[in-house]
Amino acid sequence: MPTDLIHGAAVIGQSGGPTAVINQSLVGAVLALQGHEAITAIYGARNGVRGMVENRFVDLTDSPPDFLEAIAQTPSAALGSTRDKPDEAYCERIFESLRAKDVRYFFYIGGNDSSDTCRIVNELSDQAGYELRCFHIPKTIDNDLMESDHTPGYPSAARFVAKAFTGDNLDNKSLPGIKINVVMGRHAGFLTGAAALARRFETDGPHLIYLPERHFDPDRFVADVDGVYSRLGRCLIAVSEGVHNDSGEAISHLLQQTGEVDAHGNVQLSGSGALGDFLAGLLRTKLAARGGKPPRIRADTLGYMQRCYPDPSPLDQQEARAAGAHAAKLAMSGDLDGSIAIKRSPGETYQSQPVAVKLNAVAGRTRVMPEEFLRGDNDVSDAFVNYLRPLVGEMPVVESFA
Amino acid sequence: MPTDLIHGAAVIGQSGGPTAVINQSLVGAVLALQGHEAITAIYGARNGVRGMVENRFVDLTDSPPDFLEAIAQTPSAALGSTRDKPDEAYCERIFESLRAKDVRYFFYIGGNDSSDTCRIVNELSDQAGYELRCFHIPKTIDNDLMESDHTPGYPSAARFVAKAFTGDNLDNKSLPGIKINVVMGRHAGFLTGAAALARRFETDGPHLIYLPERHFDPDRFVADVDGVYSRLGRCLIAVSEGVHNDSGEAISHLLQQTGEVDAHGNVQLSGSGALGDFLAGLLRTKLAARGGKPPRIRADTLGYMQRCYPDPSPLDQQEARAAGAHAAKLAMSGDLDGSIAIKRSPGETYQSQPVAVKLNAVAGRTRVMPEEFLRGDNDVSDAFVNYLRPLVGEMPVVESFA
Repeated sequence: MPTDLIHGAAVIGQSGGPTAVINQSLVGAVLALQGHEAITAIYGARNGVRGMVENRFVDLTDSPPDFLEAIAQTPSAALGSTRDKPDEAYCERIFESLRAKDVRYFFYIGGNDSSDTCRIVNELSDQAGYELRCFHIPKTIDNDLMESDHTPGYPSAARFVAKAFTGDNLDNKSLPGIKINVVMGRHAGFLTGAAALARRFETDGPHLIYLPERHFDPDRFVADVDGVYSRLGRCLIAVSEGVHNDSGEAISHLLQQTGEVDAHGNVQLSGSGALGDFLAGLLRTKLAARGGKPPRIRADTLGYMQRCYPDPSPLDQQEARAAGAHAAKLAMSGDLDGSIAIKRSPGETYQSQPVAVKLNAVAGRTRVMPEEFLRGDNDVSDAFVNYLRPLVGEMPVVESFA
Repeated sequence: MPTDLIHGAAVIGQSGGPTAVINQSLVGAVLALQGHEAITAIYGARNGVRGMVENRFVDLTDSPPDFLEAIAQTPSAALGSTRDKPDEAYCERIFESLRAKDVRYFFYIGGNDSSDTCRIVNELSDQAGYELRCFHIPKTIDNDLMESDHTPGYPSAARFVAKAFTGDNLDNKSLPGIKINVVMGRHAGFLTGAAALARRFETDGPHLIYLPERHFDPDRFVADVDGVYSRLGRCLIAVSEGVHNDSGEAISHLLQQTGEVDAHGNVQLSGSGALGDFLAGLLRTKLAARGGKPPRIRADTLGYMQRCYPDPSPLDQQEARAAGAHAAKLAMSGDLDGSIAIKRSPGETYQSQPVAVKLNAVAGRTRVMPEEFLRGDNDVSDAFVNYLRPLVGEMPVVESFA
């Protein structure tokens, strides 16, 4: 233990859209902090920053290991989450709340907005001359954080998407038609691209993959689908909820009536079937106009199941746990603040380790799919499939009559 | 072997909406037929009856066991399926096709329409004095066949629904709001009711379950949701796609009358988010009118994933395999025709066996949930939960901070 390590309490919170492994990170951090001589108490903040300002905490100082193991396996944020995005004034209240409990170690599990919260709280404590170590622990199914090979939560969501498309491709093969599946992902197509893992045989779908990294042109979409359907007699399509036109307007946003915007200024894209139904209607109209027997057209929206379906990637569980533990270890070794990234080792066999990165390298920034992960305007590349495959764990057995 | 057992070929087909275990039944039958002295060849009909009349068959006579095991684990109908519902004239063509191949054993895996096809083909062969043994092997995620404790395919679909709601309940608990999930089931609520398995702790959802066995009243729905939301600050709702008003009109029909769908499409029950979006819009309007901060309201439609998500119930795999094997065994023991039902043994520990039932006890008839499986107008009973729990296999670990 570094001689200058300050004694005090630790607080940990969870924020943003939950994942199937976010509690692994919580438990990884708590287990690494429990019994450490510098740690006087461990508090879990209910509903993230909101519980901090409302003084709602769970005492985790002596939580027994069996109970914590069960929490770790439970999907979604066991402490509760929040969509609050603290501004300076809100961060002041967080900081005052932490100070009142003599909190000296602040851990916040979340996406890029959460890393920004960490950054502001950290700056406030610096200004006040109050020693507080602030760590962001990454979590997002969108896989859109800078510096990381991938983010905890993404492999499990990708596993769900890959398995859902595996089943749906076989369903569509047995009863041919046109099927659209809308997948989560506002700016980054990593999750939608995971649909490609469903392919085993040459004519397997998804046959078309539309990502927010490309402009979405409805006319080209119709022509693409028509081409696949003419060739194969069926077409399975993955569409990211975040697809947008060449003016950058999300197609979902153009359709929706509610105009709901969250505290971060994000427009509601999930929790509605509108985009899928719009695209199905578009195909129905345009393809009927070409004559012949109208194809069977259906649309599903994979929805919130993508976040917390209780069948996580085993690797994701381990890495999420390790990310939480690593943040605690860094805090206990004297590093003042930072975030955690997952670094993949070079080589044939997949290996990774958690590493420290600067808060401002992550805070409020968004990563999208690099060009080498895309193929043309409506597919992902082999490089992406090779990147993703080791993350998701075992995929189902699929066999076919010739 | 009975002395009067006729020598000839066997044909097997798959029909209707696929399931995660329909290939288990196929492989169960094929393995039981392979090498039997009365069986001269085994043909798989591609796309069910359609492949029979179009002379599209796969020769399964010598398919190796390893290959068949992989087929058995593959979700959806490996031979392809069909929505064709044969009338008498169509059945004539099937019968002629079978006769041309000297088929003496006819197996058809499907729902109640498929059992009716078996029944008609059977009658035609009787009229022609052509000895043909017709067996229906049950399959449907809807669990709506007569005579069976439950149908192969239902436990796996119920497992998916239960796991999806387990994750979504925890998601909704961490970020409270109103969430509607639409579940498959046109006339029977068995699959929607499976959402109840998500409950572990007292305030867990689904808090309301709407089934086609009850009339759906939009005003009562709004009042129910308002009540739960006022009490718990959140509300998770399971709605069957087949809910209808007290005149028996499906709500989807009402959507067309009120113009709540886009101008392009027909409203079908599955493959659209229209019902969920309509109900979310209804709540948004009615609850906003009551003043106060408007709740966060989202809707998902679980969609086709319910049929073929590749995470089947292990029990369902075994029972589907046994149903196929039992049909073959009955045919080889001289029973002329029939269907298979799953019979549950009395007693604390779950045990079941496949039994023979008459075709006309199953053909074209639909079972709905019995009264003792329902609780009030918006829930299932403990009796239903006890009925379902042994079927779905292990459920995820869920723990909670007090």
